[in-house]
Amino acid sequence: MKILIINSGSSSIKYQLMVMPNNEVICSGMIDRIGLETSNVTFKTAANSIEEIIPIATHKEGLTKVAEMLLDSEKGVIQSTSEISAVGHRVVHGGSYFSDTTIISDEVKEKIKELSELAPLHNPAHLVGINVAEEIFSNATQVAVFDTAFHQTIPVEAYKYAIPNYLLTEHKIRVYGFHGTSHKYVSEKAIDYLENKSKIITIHLGNGCSMTAVKDGKSIDHTMGFSPANGLIMGTRAGDIDQSVIFYLIKNLGYTADEVNSILLKQSGMLGLTGYSDLRDIEAEAEKGNKECQLALLMNAYRIKKTIGSYVAALNGLDAIVFTAGIGENSSFIRNLVCTDMEYFGIEIEEEKNLIRSKSIREINKPNSKVKILVVPTDEEFEIANQVYHLLES
Amino acid sequence: MKILIINSGSSSIKYQLMVMPNNEVICSGMIDRIGLETSNVTFKTAANSIEEIIPIATHKEGLTKVAEMLLDSEKGVIQSTSEISAVGHRVVHGGSYFSDTTIISDEVKEKIKELSELAPLHNPAHLVGINVAEEIFSNATQVAVFDTAFHQTIPVEAYKYAIPNYLLTEHKIRVYGFHGTSHKYVSEKAIDYLENKSKIITIHLGNGCSMTAVKDGKSIDHTMGFSPANGLIMGTRAGDIDQSVIFYLIKNLGYTADEVNSILLKQSGMLGLTGYSDLRDIEAEAEKGNKECQLALLMNAYRIKKTIGSYVAALNGLDAIVFTAGIGENSSFIRNLVCTDMEYFGIEIEEEKNLIRSKSIREINKPNSKVKILVVPTDEEFEIANQVYHLLES
Repeated sequence: MKILIINSGSSSIKYQLMVMPNNEVICSGMIDRIGLETSNVTFKTAANSIEEIIPIATHKEGLTKVAEMLLDSEKGVIQSTSEISAVGHRVVHGGSYFSDTTIISDEVKEKIKELSELAPLHNPAHLVGINVAEEIFSNATQVAVFDTAFHQTIPVEAYKYAIPNYLLTEHKIRVYGFHGTSHKYVSEKAIDYLENKSKIITIHLGNGCSMTAVKDGKSIDHTMGFSPANGLIMGTRAGDIDQSVIFYLIKNLGYTADEVNSILLKQSGMLGLTGYSDLRDIEAEAEKGNKECQLALLMNAYRIKKTIGSYVAALNGLDAIVFTAGIGENSSFIRNLVCTDMEYFGIEIEEEKNLIRSKSIREINKPNSKVKILVVPTDEEFEIANQVYHLLES
Repeated sequence: MKILIINSGSSSIKYQLMVMPNNEVICSGMIDRIGLETSNVTFKTAANSIEEIIPIATHKEGLTKVAEMLLDSEKGVIQSTSEISAVGHRVVHGGSYFSDTTIISDEVKEKIKELSELAPLHNPAHLVGINVAEEIFSNATQVAVFDTAFHQTIPVEAYKYAIPNYLLTEHKIRVYGFHGTSHKYVSEKAIDYLENKSKIITIHLGNGCSMTAVKDGKSIDHTMGFSPANGLIMGTRAGDIDQSVIFYLIKNLGYTADEVNSILLKQSGMLGLTGYSDLRDIEAEAEKGNKECQLALLMNAYRIKKTIGSYVAALNGLDAIVFTAGIGENSSFIRNLVCTDMEYFGIEIEEEKNLIRSKSIREINKPNSKVKILVVPTDEEFEIANQVYHLLES
């Protein structure tokens, strides 16, 4: 079954064509800077790798271009768009409506639209992608895979805020959780690897950073809440902060609410602390003796450690912690900081194993460590394809 | 040595006269609703208990009234104000300036004034109290005891926020921590009781609620940050919340920043969740089957449990947890919720011991519980008097 995966953002479309259940990637690429004269188009197959800069005015033009490349008689990979059985759309916000991957109907589109209020940067762009894909791949089943779905099992005592009840009932203000596709994928991989251990903490450290407490395969708590702004320290996002700081900045320093929001999302995190937002630069600087970079890494790791502790309380136990995503998979430095002085939890890292670089799932704890420490490469596209496949086959 | 302790609020003065080092309370009371025609004045000694409603226009009139009652030939307890060696003033915010109890000079008053920006409801009222006390008790040494002082040992990775550095260096935005007098007092009591155990978590549950990680007698982390707004769920305060909720309420629901701040401080917490702010009412309702009250208690306890876990990570171990203040000392229900399903940490509560009501320090864990669970009645007035005494005697 050929499944096209589409991640439609505000000015970009990422795509990947897979054959399932073989897990075979036939083709992948993206269109960036839609709306500009210099849109960047990439298309990659086993045989070819194309990159061109051409004007792509709209998402419709973009997806039409993708279809053309897929169908190209020379470098293409399909004869007809009808070969594609399903299109899997990544959708950031499914609110409280969607706890699972869902075939897209008019009603589903209405709900995704309604949720735009909670995800104004993402859901409208997803809807555009869905509408265009319905036109171009008209024989395919359109399926939505929600970032929030995995976290719909979080119990009410963990998803509710201690604010007046009408803000939940009337305005849907609660913890939703994000990065669900990744947390689901790596927690399942870890459970397979460990042969059914039940108490796992997944640590997704990439551009955004988040952690999930996973019990018996289900998310029971998560660091990101109503939006992907809080929790861990990220590249440019502050993560958790005393809310009184916001009121202070507005009242005493004369910032507008929008300006404060922008500071906390775009000028904070590792960037605000060090002047760098790429962790590789920060680690290199720290090694050279840059005190700000050293401190920022320590702060970052300290918050991860504290969250591990809090999730051990939520789980009343711990079988494994799982590092994933760009930083989680590649930074042995951060992993080491996080796992140092954590013996009370039964977490003991083995330095040599931690230094190994690999694309496979691997165990980096000491042999006698009570808690397993795993590095599990994430693969959100595969997870989306897999969920679409299982939905349609079931 | 006779020490008068004064807690001067915006419209009230609480006072207590103690003889140190005997720990003897000669007299205590308060003046409430200063500025109104119906100010409430109380004065309590071993022999007498007076309560009257009279107009008290200013803090100066209030403290003058206190002096008059202390000096009263019939019901008073001193012959001359010069018998009072020192006046200990509770000061909420000492910023980064004061890590210890300090004799008040003009320079100290200047700093307390400067810090009014960070504690606009408290520090100005304290300054009024100090100035009036200097006039009336002119022979006494005036001493400031800061709520924030105990937390000045929190290391930078725990007190710094992941926001642009200039907000710390120029605007002093960081974690300060509060309830320090109480956390210091009960942690010292616990250390004495346990004979020098070094890793302790103190849980102050009163009108405000906060927790401190204490290592070797020093605060190393605390739930309240820049202001006493965040961390645990409180009577009317929300505690921790994803900051994006604030921007959402301003942008999408049309609230002003001040209105949102007011909602989070005065209409949230247990009140927002249940309609009640007094925990005794909430527990009684929960017992009758009120679902909102049951959930609010569960949420409250869940957040305390998670904080215990995070501080176990900060301490890499745990010798004891300590419950204190109105709720912490009296609610066996909350203590039980917090300590249930915490065996992985070595926390095991003994139900019968938990139910005992007492004014003394007591141990409520099972005999074989790895971690001690203590209830330690707090006494902030005693702690202030003690600190003043030791400063002047040393």
